[in-house]
Amino acid sequence: MASVRLVALKALHGWSIMSSSSLCNHSHSLLRHRTHHHAFSIRPFSAIMSPPSMAVLYDHHGPPDTVTRVVEVPPVELKETDVCVKMLAAPINPSDINRIEGVYPVRPQVPAVGGYEGVGQVHSLGSAVKGISPGDWVIPSPPSSGTWQTYVIKDQSVWHKIDKDTPIEYAATITVNPLTALLMLEDFASLKSGDAIVQNGATSIVGQCIIQLARNRGIRSINIIRDRAGSDKVKEKLKKLGADEVYTESQLEVKNVKALLVNIPEPALGFNCVGGNAASLVLKFLRQGGTMVTYGGMSKKPITVSTSSFIFKDLSLRGFWLQKWMTSDKAKECRKLIDYLLSLVCEGKLTYDMELVPFSDFHTALDKALGNLGSQPKQVIKF
Amino acid sequence: MASVRLVALKALHGWSIMSSSSLCNHSHSLLRHRTHHHAFSIRPFSAIMSPPSMAVLYDHHGPPDTVTRVVEVPPVELKETDVCVKMLAAPINPSDINRIEGVYPVRPQVPAVGGYEGVGQVHSLGSAVKGISPGDWVIPSPPSSGTWQTYVIKDQSVWHKIDKDTPIEYAATITVNPLTALLMLEDFASLKSGDAIVQNGATSIVGQCIIQLARNRGIRSINIIRDRAGSDKVKEKLKKLGADEVYTESQLEVKNVKALLVNIPEPALGFNCVGGNAASLVLKFLRQGGTMVTYGGMSKKPITVSTSSFIFKDLSLRGFWLQKWMTSDKAKECRKLIDYLLSLVCEGKLTYDMELVPFSDFHTALDKALGNLGSQPKQVIKF
Repeated sequence: MASVRLVALKALHGWSIMSSSSLCNHSHSLLRHRTHHHAFSIRPFSAIMSPPSMAVLYDHHGPPDTVTRVVEVPPVELKETDVCVKMLAAPINPSDINRIEGVYPVRPQVPAVGGYEGVGQVHSLGSAVKGISPGDWVIPSPPSSGTWQTYVIKDQSVWHKIDKDTPIEYAATITVNPLTALLMLEDFASLKSGDAIVQNGATSIVGQCIIQLARNRGIRSINIIRDRAGSDKVKEKLKKLGADEVYTESQLEVKNVKALLVNIPEPALGFNCVGGNAASLVLKFLRQGGTMVTYGGMSKKPITVSTSSFIFKDLSLRGFWLQKWMTSDKAKECRKLIDYLLSLVCEGKLTYDMELVPFSDFHTALDKALGNLGSQPKQVIKF
Repeated sequence: MASVRLVALKALHGWSIMSSSSLCNHSHSLLRHRTHHHAFSIRPFSAIMSPPSMAVLYDHHGPPDTVTRVVEVPPVELKETDVCVKMLAAPINPSDINRIEGVYPVRPQVPAVGGYEGVGQVHSLGSAVKGISPGDWVIPSPPSSGTWQTYVIKDQSVWHKIDKDTPIEYAATITVNPLTALLMLEDFASLKSGDAIVQNGATSIVGQCIIQLARNRGIRSINIIRDRAGSDKVKEKLKKLGADEVYTESQLEVKNVKALLVNIPEPALGFNCVGGNAASLVLKFLRQGGTMVTYGGMSKKPITVSTSSFIFKDLSLRGFWLQKWMTSDKAKECRKLIDYLLSLVCEGKLTYDMELVPFSDFHTALDKALGNLGSQPKQVIKF
């Protein structure tokens, strides 16, 4: 079915398809690096060209499983400060899906290559690149659009060198989810060892990271998961990661949720990635003057708050969006924080489930990421 | 009807009723100043006694029009630093009603005398009082429970001397509503001349104060009122106070409320005292990164917020409660701010509707304050 779609799109747009060997000469604005020299312009003898690249492209917004196709994009000449990176791995994050759907507030202009983070190995360099050598492992940091392709060419300033001992699936995914967890834990309240946090959606990757990052700092975590078959196993797994308490939503249908807390202080900080009732439960656990940070809305339900929660309980409700943080002054800390998170990975203090999938199975991985094949671990494309 | 009730309560509790001249000898914990010396204890010859006082008392929580009664409380001996104040005026605020109903989180122990702010004239002094003289006008600052009585005895530290030229209805009401308006305008965002705020419940006293305090600082105000008969007159009145724009809720049933704003910047700060749809309208007007402060919930409906308002629009939702602010470090500014607000009143820059009602008509004023007699101005008891 995918191939029928791809052939139809090829006819429409003139892009070469994975199964085709013809090179594309149709210029698209997105592939700046590959099209900024016209095919017939005069080129210095010494020009360094990237290899042709296979990319997951979408020409318009819509359901990712119908608008994306794998195409070959032609070689481009590297500018003086460009670095050409052979990608090793890149994840399919929910925000990647939202960007393709066109429902994300900031998104690349179409046509665009999917993906926003990943890891690769330096393949070739522009003549003025300093401090990066072929063979180095690098990640785009801050993350940057277009990582779902075999070769990515971006300015040297985009790339952050990392340790080659890092497992590629962690190097590929360290920014979007673990950095979100770390920043939310640090930026909204001044927590000290012995304090507590509460979160819903605790099985998400951000949720798992929050549990582990909190434990690492001596912060207790109260975790809310949805009711599901096998919730006992899920609880056990989260407790192994360091969760202090794990409750299903139905367990919290009690008059006073705080009465459940034994030897854990009332949390000053809560995280919500679900909305609806699960958000109300986070609010119920929070202590006087506490803050709830919303970073997702998996239930697609809004957050409902009583007047007295604001006036008498003095709660603050905030939001967190990594992409906005990346445009703030604080973003200069990004690489230091990434290095810290990768060091935790290497020490075995930060772990989460992923499935590495060959690039050739991209559309199966996408189906899994879309939830079409039931609950699945995070899909990470291996190029 | 009221007198039947009062007689019945008299029989139950043994307190003397307004119509009765018998003095009460039943000791109640609330009337600390009046009961801390037993009637038969030995008293120094020079002891200064307060006059007997008529007070609005409630013995238990419940509907204010059934649980309150006017009683005479006996003279007490003034301690060295006590000041006895003959009350001139005190308002009936919604929070006074909530305290009597027992739904307010912080409330005096019953039995208690109603009221929380007011103005009075110094009647007599304990022997060690400094800086206050008989005849001075004073207000309890921070405000303090039990102002609904003809003589109030409190420590000298409670009383703040004010100008005798102040109209008593403003002196009596300057703290709870105008100070709330001033603090909310100052403490949640750094606004400068030309900036804008948005609020619902704009006809409330806090709302009217916000309009005038904002105008005084060159801050534009966008005001939302409920749909009602005569809304054009209400709009005209608020515009006379300095409102830049006034909309009824139904006027804002449009796709993009911000398109209505001409020559007014998107507001960074919003105030909500209604909840429900009126709160959602405030959120819609707010600019990226804006803050909504909730200080009331007149519709008794909760506040509903989309996930994207937090993540992508970066809104913050907070609450304000004057009684909590009064316990904070910032409360040491209270009297300076009160003096500033009273100076605005004297300059004609701060005005709001009130009705002065003789103490003998207390239960009619209470009925009006409870909304039993339709829309009424703020009721202020004149002693």
